[in-house]
Amino acid sequence: MKIIADENMPNAKALFSHLGTVELVNGRTLTHEQIKDADVLLVRSVTKVTRELIAGSKVRFVGSATIGVDHIDMNYLAEQNVAFSSAPGCNAEAVADYVFSGLSYLYLTKGVRWASKKIGVIGFGNVGKTVYERFAQMGCQVCVYDPLKEGVDNTVNFASLDEVLGCDVISLHAPLTQSGEFPTRGMLGVEELKQLSAGVAIISAGRGGVIDEKALMARYRQLKGDMHLVVDVWDGEPNINQDLVSIVDIATPHIAGYSKQGREKGTWMVYQALCRDLNLGASALARKDAISAGWLSNVSVCAGGVLEEVLARSIHALYDVARDDARLRFKYRENKEHNVFDWLRKHYVERDELNTCLINADNSAMCKILRATGFSVNT
Amino acid sequence: MKIIADENMPNAKALFSHLGTVELVNGRTLTHEQIKDADVLLVRSVTKVTRELIAGSKVRFVGSATIGVDHIDMNYLAEQNVAFSSAPGCNAEAVADYVFSGLSYLYLTKGVRWASKKIGVIGFGNVGKTVYERFAQMGCQVCVYDPLKEGVDNTVNFASLDEVLGCDVISLHAPLTQSGEFPTRGMLGVEELKQLSAGVAIISAGRGGVIDEKALMARYRQLKGDMHLVVDVWDGEPNINQDLVSIVDIATPHIAGYSKQGREKGTWMVYQALCRDLNLGASALARKDAISAGWLSNVSVCAGGVLEEVLARSIHALYDVARDDARLRFKYRENKEHNVFDWLRKHYVERDELNTCLINADNSAMCKILRATGFSVNT
Ligand SMILES: NC(=O)c1ccc[n+]([C@@H]2O[C@H](COP(=O)([O-])OP(=O)(O)OC[C@H]3O[C@@H](n4cnc5c(N)ncnc54)[C@H](O)[C@@H]3O)[C@@H](O)[C@H]2O)c1
Ligand SMILES: NC(=O)c1ccc[n+]([C@@H]2O[C@H](COP(=O)([O-])OP(=O)(O)OC[C@H]3O[C@@H](n4cnc5c(N)ncnc54)[C@H](O)[C@@H]3O)[C@@H](O)[C@H]2O)c1
Repeated sequence: MKIIADENMPNAKALFSHLGTVELVNGRTLTHEQIKDADVLLVRSVTKVTRELIAGSKVRFVGSATIGVDHIDMNYLAEQNVAFSSAPGCNAEAVADYVFSGLSYLYLTKGVRWASKKIGVIGFGNVGKTVYERFAQMGCQVCVYDPLKEGVDNTVNFASLDEVLGCDVISLHAPLTQSGEFPTRGMLGVEELKQLSAGVAIISAGRGGVIDEKALMARYRQLKGDMHLVVDVWDGEPNINQDLVSIVDIATPHIAGYSKQGREKGTWMVYQALCRDLNLGASALARKDAISAGWLSNVSVCAGGVLEEVLARSIHALYDVARDDARLRFKYRENKEHNVFDWLRKHYVERDELNTCLINADNSAMCKILRATGFSVNT
Repeated sequence: MKIIADENMPNAKALFSHLGTVELVNGRTLTHEQIKDADVLLVRSVTKVTRELIAGSKVRFVGSATIGVDHIDMNYLAEQNVAFSSAPGCNAEAVADYVFSGLSYLYLTKGVRWASKKIGVIGFGNVGKTVYERFAQMGCQVCVYDPLKEGVDNTVNFASLDEVLGCDVISLHAPLTQSGEFPTRGMLGVEELKQLSAGVAIISAGRGGVIDEKALMARYRQLKGDMHLVVDVWDGEPNINQDLVSIVDIATPHIAGYSKQGREKGTWMVYQALCRDLNLGASALARKDAISAGWLSNVSVCAGGVLEEVLARSIHALYDVARDDARLRFKYRENKEHNVFDWLRKHYVERDELNTCLINADNSAMCKILRATGFSVNT
């Protein structure tokens, strides 16, 4: 079996060699000629998988290690009976880690006692659900707004947008949509932001443009800056609004999902789909061969004191969002790169997911909360 | 025995109650009247211990939980036979932690392979010696310039200023002096900075004013920004040069020495001195009663890969300088506090020293290096 894979797909050679001959290619310049006698094509979002690329080739399986499928002509693949698989949710844990690292930063630097506050999540997809469940399992008072998912699960505390806007912590995980019954572009505009209370903390790690940035800045001034902002996604990336950067507590370059294991999980999910497609079971590689262990395998944390403090010390041991903020601000000020935003994404300092770390605390209630937060905990 | 202590001296009540009655006071407004029937006076740098304050009182012991003694009339105390003790070196480990956290940040964000480079230290006092020894025990190629200490120990690699200026990493730990044979003000001026190589990394955590900041910025431009700068101390604090802030990788508000245990060690050193003075031995409290354990008591680190990476992951688990940099930049931009610099110092987010953490690595060479870096390691 001949497999063509994007050279920047993490781990591709190591995983797929086991199934056939793997040829690594530059995904940006891929041609029909290069793939015509391949059985399997593995891409990232930089490759447009079109009729022109595929037609007349031997390709029977296309895999994309991405959560989106905008670069894929899904209709054509279905029509031609070419199997397809992507990696929805591969970075959900990474984004959830980002959310809790951001909240921890707000606790340490501004004393935000988020865990005892009313928490609202927007979007209940792969990311939103993961974030919601962490809060819920920690015992927090959390609700979620997702008009397209409402009712799917009656153990989940679905709420109206107004309810979420009245919360003390708001975590945004909706995609950017312009049409449909509930388009999200500018969904948090002047009117909605009026409902925010003073002292609100907002984490924006879904997509830029869902919040109207001008309205946000106006509301910030109205509340005299009594607002805590952790912003990863921006309207008009890569040209981001520096005035907004200057007022937010944490500004990062759309990297909430960039964990080492998240990227590897993308390849791994595609690999698993291909194994299923080939009816391979037992012979397939194990998860541990595909997904790296973390740097800190084992941590004991002193569980006395304020809950948010214990969590902050534990979470920041693996990932402190402040390091990404420091780097962004430095790079924009230095202003040496042509496109600072994309440069930062490309030269991201890899981080481990919280689940890579087995954590021990000296009381079982705290162990439960640490597990809810995303850590591995011994039972 | 009556003991008067500054209310902001960490742990004072807990430690000294054991020796007598402790009365906590505001050190800024302390009067002779308040202390006249005290036996022991415990201050911080905000209290001027003058003849006026002490004369005619019962005070027989003055303790200051500080490394400096500028606020103390030492001659008068000696003359009156009042015992005195301060806490030199109490924050040396904290500053050394800062140095290695800064280097780790440079490795992670810019790939600076500092451990295999030529390293020069300036100043061989409590801090410089600690920093020098960490590098030396790690097996790094390190030299130190301190014209007042040269020859005190012939196992130490003393060097000329020129040699240090030719190094790839320079760590500054000289005090600010205007007179004497080797005054340090502007010691690194236009001529000296000319000797810096491209790609040099400078950590400045001694005192502002030792580097001529204008000359540094000029040299930075000359080297086209090929310089890595971690700056904790500034000329003219608290009014710091924002143009310099904008070019440095890490800018922090004179907090290199601000560890939780460092502050506690200050009180502890004074406590020990008083116990000696009172000829108390066995009955005194133990170190562990005076100095807090850390949040992360035990960490296992995966020791494979690049040395700087292993160290960075381990060090940043406890303290990443980037968090202090992020906060400084945010607070200056927000510009809500009257005196941002002092506000940041006063509202510092406490951190633990590396030595509070028992670290395990899976190979013994790395264990040795981690111990040299300041961690506790099981033997
Ligand atoms: N910052 C990052 O690095 C990063 C990483 C991963 C995902 N994302 C983004 O986060 C968003 C969510 O990712 P996901 O994987 O959970 O996607 P998903 O498709 O699984 O979930 C999106 C959810 O949003 C809901 N939604 C749609 N319109 C809504 C509206 N008007 N109000 C509330 N909810 C609405 C959908 O019903 C769906 O449940 C995506 O836009 C994705 O691109 C960002
Ligand atoms: N950034 C911080 O938070 C922080 C924390 C602790 C100390 N400090 C500062 O760091 C400096 C060093 O602290 P320390 O506790 O080691 O003090 P120290 O008095 O123990 O040591 C200072 C050393 O500098 C040497 N020195 C004097 N003139 C010199 C010269 N011209 N060139 C080279 N060396 C010279 C002295 O000989 C001495 O060995 C002090 O100024 C202190 O205030 C800063």
